[in-house]
Amino acid sequence: MTVLGTAVGLTAAFCTTVSYIPQVVKCWKTRKAGDLSLKMLLTLATGLALWVAYGFINGDWVIITANAVSLFLLGNLLLFKVGEILPWGGNFQRR
Amino acid sequence: MTVLGTAVGLTAAFCTTVSYIPQVVKCWKTRKAGDLSLKMLLTLATGLALWVAYGFINGDWVIITANAVSLFLLGNLLLFKVGEILPWGGNFQRR
Repeated sequence: MTVLGTAVGLTAAFCTTVSYIPQVVKCWKTRKAGDLSLKMLLTLATGLALWVAYGFINGDWVIITANAVSLFLLGNLLLFKVGEILPWGGNFQRR
Repeated sequence: MTVLGTAVGLTAAFCTTVSYIPQVVKCWKTRKAGDLSLKMLLTLATGLALWVAYGFINGDWVIITANAVSLFLLGNLLLFKVGEILPWGGNFQRR
């Protein structure tokens, strides 16, 4: 792979991984995740978990790391979303 | 790459790509994107555009296709978000 290719790939991986941080911060601040789609979060979490598995199968630590971090951040969003839906979620939201 | 690796990778790409569909549907239905982070959408869009560029550099049509579709779906979400923020966005939202 060219140096340009590697640089573009690493920047792309960095952007798609850190992109969830402002969303997590927003949810923690507003304590709201109503407009986020639970189906999106669940499908995305499944996809990211599979990417981590793909990284393990191919021994690619860049894919493992990027997607594991994304999965952790997405887990935060899922916590909020599930907290809004479950009947006892209100207590979690106010904590 | 093993058959297992290819299968896991393709399933992972499929999940992370289609995951935006339920979010786009939700936004079109509720006409609301208030809880979505604009910073997340912009960073994610930058990352996806770079993945498409990465695909072109490496001649990898799977990466190009998956990320171009994601970028298109994310563009829909950005339209909603920007429509909420801009002063003339109200008209767009009610259209």
